[in-house]
Amino acid sequence: MEEFIRAGDLVFIWAPPKGDSFIIKATPGGRQDSRLGQLLHDDIIGMPFGSWAYTNMGKPFCLLRPNIQEYSRRVRRMTQILYPKDTGFILVSLNIGPGALVVECGTGSGGFTSVLAHFVGDAGRVVSYEKKEEYSLLARRNCEKWGVAHRVDFKIRDIAEGFDERGVDALFLDVPNPWDYLGRVKETLAPGNRLGILVPTVNQVEKTLDGLKDHFFFDAQVSEILLRYYKTNSRRIRPEDTMIGHTGYLVFASNVLGPPDLDPDGGDDPD
Amino acid sequence: MEEFIRAGDLVFIWAPPKGDSFIIKATPGGRQDSRLGQLLHDDIIGMPFGSWAYTNMGKPFCLLRPNIQEYSRRVRRMTQILYPKDTGFILVSLNIGPGALVVECGTGSGGFTSVLAHFVGDAGRVVSYEKKEEYSLLARRNCEKWGVAHRVDFKIRDIAEGFDERGVDALFLDVPNPWDYLGRVKETLAPGNRLGILVPTVNQVEKTLDGLKDHFFFDAQVSEILLRYYKTNSRRIRPEDTMIGHTGYLVFASNVLGPPDLDPDGGDDPD
Amino acid sequence: MEEFIRAGDLVFIWAPPKGDSFIIKATPGGRQDSRLGQLLHDDIIGMPFGSWAYTNMGKPFCLLRPNIQEYSRRVRRMTQILYPKDTGFILVSLNIGPGALVVECGTGSGGFTSVLAHFVGDAGRVVSYEKKEEYSLLARRNCEKWGVAHRVDFKIRDIAEGFDERGVDALFLDVPNPWDYLGRVKETLAPGNRLGILVPTVNQVEKTLDGLKDHFFFDAQVSEILLRYYKTNSRRIRPEDTMIGHTGYLVFASNVLGPPDLDPDGGDDPD
Amino acid sequence: MEEFIRAGDLVFIWAPPKGDSFIIKATPGGRQDSRLGQLLHDDIIGMPFGSWAYTNMGKPFCLLRPNIQEYSRRVRRMTQILYPKDTGFILVSLNIGPGALVVECGTGSGGFTSVLAHFVGDAGRVVSYEKKEEYSLLARRNCEKWGVAHRVDFKIRDIAEGFDERGVDALFLDVPNPWDYLGRVKETLAPGNRLGILVPTVNQVEKTLDGLKDHFFFDAQVSEILLRYYKTNSRRIRPEDTMIGHTGYLVFASNVLGPPDLDPDGGDDPD
Repeated sequence: MEEFIRAGDLVFIWAPPKGDSFIIKATPGGRQDSRLGQLLHDDIIGMPFGSWAYTNMGKPFCLLRPNIQEYSRRVRRMTQILYPKDTGFILVSLNIGPGALVVECGTGSGGFTSVLAHFVGDAGRVVSYEKKEEYSLLARRNCEKWGVAHRVDFKIRDIAEGFDERGVDALFLDVPNPWDYLGRVKETLAPGNRLGILVPTVNQVEKTLDGLKDHFFFDAQVSEILLRYYKTNSRRIRPEDTMIGHTGYLVFASNVLGPPDLDPDGGDDPD
Repeated sequence: MEEFIRAGDLVFIWAPPKGDSFIIKATPGGRQDSRLGQLLHDDIIGMPFGSWAYTNMGKPFCLLRPNIQEYSRRVRRMTQILYPKDTGFILVSLNIGPGALVVECGTGSGGFTSVLAHFVGDAGRVVSYEKKEEYSLLARRNCEKWGVAHRVDFKIRDIAEGFDERGVDALFLDVPNPWDYLGRVKETLAPGNRLGILVPTVNQVEKTLDGLKDHFFFDAQVSEILLRYYKTNSRRIRPEDTMIGHTGYLVFASNVLGPPDLDPDGGDDPD
Repeated sequence: MEEFIRAGDLVFIWAPPKGDSFIIKATPGGRQDSRLGQLLHDDIIGMPFGSWAYTNMGKPFCLLRPNIQEYSRRVRRMTQILYPKDTGFILVSLNIGPGALVVECGTGSGGFTSVLAHFVGDAGRVVSYEKKEEYSLLARRNCEKWGVAHRVDFKIRDIAEGFDERGVDALFLDVPNPWDYLGRVKETLAPGNRLGILVPTVNQVEKTLDGLKDHFFFDAQVSEILLRYYKTNSRRIRPEDTMIGHTGYLVFASNVLGPPDLDPDGGDDPD
Repeated sequence: MEEFIRAGDLVFIWAPPKGDSFIIKATPGGRQDSRLGQLLHDDIIGMPFGSWAYTNMGKPFCLLRPNIQEYSRRVRRMTQILYPKDTGFILVSLNIGPGALVVECGTGSGGFTSVLAHFVGDAGRVVSYEKKEEYSLLARRNCEKWGVAHRVDFKIRDIAEGFDERGVDALFLDVPNPWDYLGRVKETLAPGNRLGILVPTVNQVEKTLDGLKDHFFFDAQVSEILLRYYKTNSRRIRPEDTMIGHTGYLVFASNVLGPPDLDPDGGDDPD
């Protein structure tokens, strides 16, 4: 059942004992430098996944399948990126899956664009808006490397001008002022579907919640995810000494056509 | 761009101000009871997603698209289920996406089976092993309700007898004693690919790590995810008073064909 | 080295296997009802601490020394109380110890007042302000029960009128609008000493930080503490399923006489 | 109400905008170097607490009262130290306060010894055991600097030989193998009183719990504390990007004279 590495394949190489690791594109004549020595791509090409290659210092790297978790957090970047702890939860919360039509803004370095494009499959589509051309171009290259750029429309535009799409399955905003675009979001996101937002500060959460209420988004949920890694020596199991303390707050809410007609006798204030 | 609810559609209904909510299958003549009154399915069918329906007490429910996050944590259950905070991270960590062939054990109530089947799409396949027939049957019904049962092979069998599949893209174990099946996992999971495991106790983490080392799984990662919800009144933003304190520890590791040939001069002990 | 329980002693009684527990004042003729049966105080008086007493159903309770952690979270209450996870950190952060003169507002149910009075000792003094007489009276009773009420001045007054004390060692505010009293705090807290504040929402943190800046408090620190309990079966160690997700944000800052004279050539903005 | 700094006083100096800070002993002729320039102690002596002093680069430091929280985490150290998040909770959990007789082992660098000696006051006593003389000497110097060494007996000894004290109010173990000393603890800790233990790994928690059960300690509690700091710009409130992910697990349990006589008809297994 072994599968052999071919030129052009992405390979996730990982070395004991410290976990030095890289995602490389196997390229004839290529090489990977590391503090454990130099690894020649020609020594990798033709080897089965799951086997070992050795540096010129005799140090072993195992040849693993890359995965979107490791890939998305290692993309070349010019911007802050979304972390796997958050991306996975966004996927399930926005119901993104094969065949979905998803809009995101901003593109940034394209780490999350890669994740979205991975999960919508060839039957789906991602439309990714970004004001800065250099970010969009970087993101395209990052998606190309993962082999999913063909599923993405990269649009270089300020979303204050609106989105081109209508009736989309899910929409994700990673911008500093999401509350300014909620009217545009309502034009674009299919009624009944969910919007996702990531903002780093609580002040932004406050403004976002006010905006969502004003624009008749309901079922707002605000959350944050803490991911805690453990040391893996089975005789000394304990959490890592330091951890990421914060990336951002996740806000989800559903697009509703308008406010309810309230029961004239009821005292409940919809919230 | 509105889409109208038809008989047979799943609908996620949500009511202010407390967020009472249900996922229902719109059925002519059906009704949903709640503490806010009775909602007739016939009042929902034909309405657009994103609009409101009213109970016999005049209370509004908005008619939302169901999503796999809300669905998976609301399935009818006989067993403990996986939570969305964990499922999303498993998806990205195991590189599960459209077209993947995934094996899981045990099926349990099928909440995670639904998630897997959702994300592999029609081009993918999930094989789900379970010893207890009643769990497997319940899981099938839960997958049917979400419309993805056709992507799943439900096998009622003890995996001590081994898995039928070979070269699978990802494998997930949610069993009390995963260390007992790691030899079987190695036969089944394609070399270079990742195994995921969920165990609730640290004692199980310890045995799992020892088993992974013995069976030449490398790049072991142990983590736990804490999801913290916030109250959504923008004038009084604060975390919820209580939260889920623990579901389980997530362990990921990669299937390697064997140990490396260590540099005879090197002192490093692969770990 | 055994010490025998006398009438009037507080006793912390604790029963296996579920940890049913109470803090009782041993009183001739008294009795404690529980779901494990009835315990007669007369069966406790004269027994050594660390021994067992039995209910009329034959169930054992061990007779332990009460401690301020268990006491402070079990006080009779009319208000939200401070939790031990927070009180301990406040003590060390505000340098409260034997001999300290501490002012707090509001008194509330007196759980934290008991803690403060415990730690300042007979050489110290706690002044506790509260607008509502019924809270203050309850707090006094809770401090009396712990034997420290003689160290406390209970003042029933709105602190908008100011504090009577000057040059105090530490000051703690647990009120909804601490920013309104910072001028009063400056009159009272010795220069160079620390103020502590607990507020439940992030909106209050925002206003508090602005107020602290306006009133020349420096070295502001904002934090929150998460306490996570574990199950104690050594074969199945794992965190408890649910935990307290939030009590409040702790803010500390130091009272400085005024702003610095900034270096006319320096560009730094003190923060 | 100002108080003036005298030679020999400890002063906590803190500088905007980044919070550069030091705890210094004001010494005629002394100076403090920092990246903001040099501060002469002679410019501090005679100034009031709460005022500002300036470096030779014209940068301001405010002159604050030191507190045990800042002190204990800044002691000169040769060993891992206890953090304020843990020390405060230990104090309230072990009922340490004015007049208490407390035993700890090991002394380490004396950060926690300083805290204990601070809180027991002149009426209390701390006995601190340590095998390594150099640690004990360092700890003594750290306690002297805080002015509390006269409340401490520093004993250089392996506690396998037992403790000298009997009937102590509280006992704290910060050693790698606490389970080996529980018999010795029972001789020393007054019946009915609490033992506290800090261990970094879950494997140690497991052995500790078994040992506690074998030695008839009851009411075992295992917990961990997470302290999360926030950025203090009121327009951009958010948790710090990184945080301490782990220091250790705290275990508390009460010393009971022996097992209960179980109800012959009862099926409960004390736990």
